[in-house]
Amino acid sequence: MTSALNIPDLIRKKRDGAEHSRAELEGLVLGYTRGEVPDYQISAWLMAVYLRGMTPRETADLTLVMAESGDQMNLGNLPRTVDKHSTGGVGDKTSLILTPMLAALGLTVAKMSGRGLAHTGGTIDKLESFPGWTPELPEERFLAQAREIGLALVGQSRDLAPADGKLYALRDVTATVDCLPLIASSIMSKKLASGAHTVILDVKVGAGAFMRTLEDGRALARAMVDIGTRAGRQVRAVLTDMDAPLGRMAGNSLEVREAIYTLRGEGPEDLTELCVALAVEALAAYGEDEAQAEARARATLRDGSALERFRAFVAAQGGDGALVDHPERLDVAPGRAEVLSPASGFVERIDALSVGRAVLALGGGRERKGEAIDHGVGVELLRKPGEAVSAGEAVLRLSHRNGRGLETARALLEEGLTVTATAPAPQPLILDRVN
Amino acid sequence: MTSALNIPDLIRKKRDGAEHSRAELEGLVLGYTRGEVPDYQISAWLMAVYLRGMTPRETADLTLVMAESGDQMNLGNLPRTVDKHSTGGVGDKTSLILTPMLAALGLTVAKMSGRGLAHTGGTIDKLESFPGWTPELPEERFLAQAREIGLALVGQSRDLAPADGKLYALRDVTATVDCLPLIASSIMSKKLASGAHTVILDVKVGAGAFMRTLEDGRALARAMVDIGTRAGRQVRAVLTDMDAPLGRMAGNSLEVREAIYTLRGEGPEDLTELCVALAVEALAAYGEDEAQAEARARATLRDGSALERFRAFVAAQGGDGALVDHPERLDVAPGRAEVLSPASGFVERIDALSVGRAVLALGGGRERKGEAIDHGVGVELLRKPGEAVSAGEAVLRLSHRNGRGLETARALLEEGLTVTATAPAPQPLILDRVN
Repeated sequence: MTSALNIPDLIRKKRDGAEHSRAELEGLVLGYTRGEVPDYQISAWLMAVYLRGMTPRETADLTLVMAESGDQMNLGNLPRTVDKHSTGGVGDKTSLILTPMLAALGLTVAKMSGRGLAHTGGTIDKLESFPGWTPELPEERFLAQAREIGLALVGQSRDLAPADGKLYALRDVTATVDCLPLIASSIMSKKLASGAHTVILDVKVGAGAFMRTLEDGRALARAMVDIGTRAGRQVRAVLTDMDAPLGRMAGNSLEVREAIYTLRGEGPEDLTELCVALAVEALAAYGEDEAQAEARARATLRDGSALERFRAFVAAQGGDGALVDHPERLDVAPGRAEVLSPASGFVERIDALSVGRAVLALGGGRERKGEAIDHGVGVELLRKPGEAVSAGEAVLRLSHRNGRGLETARALLEEGLTVTATAPAPQPLILDRVN
Repeated sequence: MTSALNIPDLIRKKRDGAEHSRAELEGLVLGYTRGEVPDYQISAWLMAVYLRGMTPRETADLTLVMAESGDQMNLGNLPRTVDKHSTGGVGDKTSLILTPMLAALGLTVAKMSGRGLAHTGGTIDKLESFPGWTPELPEERFLAQAREIGLALVGQSRDLAPADGKLYALRDVTATVDCLPLIASSIMSKKLASGAHTVILDVKVGAGAFMRTLEDGRALARAMVDIGTRAGRQVRAVLTDMDAPLGRMAGNSLEVREAIYTLRGEGPEDLTELCVALAVEALAAYGEDEAQAEARARATLRDGSALERFRAFVAAQGGDGALVDHPERLDVAPGRAEVLSPASGFVERIDALSVGRAVLALGGGRERKGEAIDHGVGVELLRKPGEAVSAGEAVLRLSHRNGRGLETARALLEEGLTVTATAPAPQPLILDRVN
C-alpha cells in the first residue's frame, strides 16, 4: 500500500498547502513507524505541516492513523468509561481527586497515566508516594479492578500510538513541536487508543503552559473536541488558568496530602472548583443535567464517597489504605526553608513554571526519563496570588532533604514572586468550556 | 564553533521567517557536511527555507559557506578568467562554441564541466564523441594548457562544494528543489569554488526549463548576479528561451558536428546569436565596449580563430584534431527514421523536453550516473518552430542504433510536435539580460 505512494510527492502536496487523504497520511505515518520512510522526509513534511497547517478532517484522520499504529485498549465491556487529560500543569493533582469522584458518581475510569518530566509532575509519581502502590497491573486485573471499584490507574506499559512517540521525538529536534494540529493529534491519538468513550480535557492556559493565550487554548480545545467527534467519542474541554500553581502544594507527597484534604471536602477552593467542573463535564457527556451533575459531584466530597473510592483504589494496587486516613504520615522531607515577602502589599504573581522548576531542583522531579525522584520534597504556597502579605512574612515554604538544591530552588521562587501595593484583580480559574 | 549553536533554535529562527547570520549558516551547512548535524534536522530547515525564503545577504552567505566547504580552485595566475554556466538545456552545445571563441578573444577558460543526466546533455559527454579525448588532466597540465591555448575543460574531479552535493541529494527527496535561494546558491557555490573571476550565466526559461516563466528566470538571474557581486566576482546573465531545442541537432556527435559548423560561421542563427551574446557579456565584464565586443566576437567565427582554438584544445586533451576539419567522420549511428508532419501549415512547437527524452530513449543519455551512453544517436530538427511544412513532410529525423528505443523516441517526438495553419509569431531567443 505504502509503496504506491511517492513520498516526495506527498511532501510537495503539503508544502503547497493541499489537503492529504487518509491513505496518504497512512503512507507517511505508518511508513515512518515501520521504518520504511526515513526521518529526513518526515521532518521536511512536519515543517510543511507546521507552516501550512491541516484541515479539521485531515487532523482527525492523522489522529486516527496514529491511534491505530499500535495496541488499542478494549474497554468495550466497562460501563460509562471516562478518561481525563491535562495539557500539563504545576501542582496539578486534579487526577487524584477527580478520578475517585467519577468512580463514586457511577462512571468508570480505567486509565493510563504518565510520569513527570522536567518541571511537570505525573500522576504515577504522585501515587508512588504511597509505599507499595504499583502502576503495573496485568490487563485482566486492571479491567476487573475498574469494574469493581470504578477506578484503575496504570503506567504507560502498553504500546499505545507508537507513531506518536516516534513523531514527537522527531518534532522535538526539528522545531515543529508547537503546531496546533500536531499537538492535538498527539494528545488525542493516545486518548483514542486508550479506549474510553468519553474524554475530559483540562487545557491549561498561561505563562507556564504550552498555550500562552486563551485564544490559542480555545483553538487547541476546539481541535481536540473536533477530532473526538469525528472519531465517534464524546470529548469536552475546560480551559483553565495556569499562571499560578493549582492549590497550595507542589511536590509529590505534599500534593497527595492536599488531594486527600480535598477529597474530604477540606481542599483549597480553586482545586475543588476545577474538580467539580471536570466531573460535571463527564456527567454531562453522558447526558446528565448540569445542575444535577454539579450537586452530585459536590456531594461526593461531602459524603466521603469519593474518599472511600480513593482508599479502595490505593489498597487494590498495593498501597496502604490507612495512609489515606492519616495523610500526615506520608513521608515529607524534614528540612524547612521559607521565601519571605520583599514588601507589604498583595501577592501579584507566583509563577507556576518557577515553582515547578524549584521542585525539580529540590529533587522532586527528573530531568531525564528513568531517573529516581524524592517524593518528599516540595513547595507550599502559604499565600496565593491576590492575598495580602506583610514585608518579611513567609510566602512560600520549601521542604528539602539535607539542603539539596535549596539555593537554586530559593532563587527560582524569589524570581517568580511579585508583590504589589494594590490588590490585583481576581483571576478566574476556569476561563472557558468547549464541547 | 558548531557546538555553541543549538540546531533546533536555528530551524525555529528560519521557521519564523528570521534571517540567519553567516556563523549560523556555517553551523548548519558545515555541520551537516561534516556529519555532525543529522539530515532530519537539515531537511526540516530546508523546508523552512523553502516556505520562508532567504534575503539576498543570507543567500550570498549560504553560497560562500557552501563554496568554502571543500576544495577551491586557484586560478589566480591565469589572465582574464571566465566561466560559463547554463541552467540546463536540450541540444545546448553552446559551451563547445563559446569557450573557444572566448579563448580566441584573449580570455582564459579553465573550467570544469559535467556529464549529462536524464534528458539534459553534458559538455564532457559531447566532447567524448572525439575518440581519445579525455576529461582527466593533472592540475598542472590543466593550468598550463589554459595558459597556452586559453581553454581547458575537465570533469568534476575535484571535491568542489561538497556541501552542495549533500544538500542537493537531500532536497531531491524532500520536495525542496525548486526554491530560488537554494537553486541560486547551489549553482553559484560551484562557480565560486571553480575560481574564475567572471561568470557568464545562460538562464533557460520555458516549458522544458527549471524556470517556467520569464519572471522566475529573471529572479534567479538577479539572485545569482547578486551573489557574485557580494562575493567580489563579475557575474552576468542572459535569459534565453528554451521552449524549443537550440540549433537543429540533439545527441552528442550530432551536436559536436553542429558546433563545428557554427565555429566555421555556418551554424544555425539561434545558436550563433546566443554564443555571440554570451561572448559579448564576457568581454563587457572585462570593461570592453559592447559594440566592439560584438564585432570581435563575430569575427572569431569568420576568421577561423575560434575553430583553431577548438582544434588545438581537442588535440591537447588527446582527441584527433583532424576530426575538427572533417566532422562528417564523427560516428553517427546509421539507422534513420523520420517523424512526419500530420498537416500542412507551420511548425508551432517542438517541445525541448520531448526531444531530450527521445535522445535518452535512443541510448544517447543516461538515467543514472555512471551509465555508458551511445554518442552516435540523436535527433535532427529538419524544421524549426515558425517554419512552413507540408502534410507528410519530414519534420524530425532520428539517428538510431539497430532500432533501440526507436518507438519510444518516435512517440515522444510526435507528442511534442504541433503544426498549425497560421504562422506563429516569431519568438525571440534572448529574452533579457541581467548584470
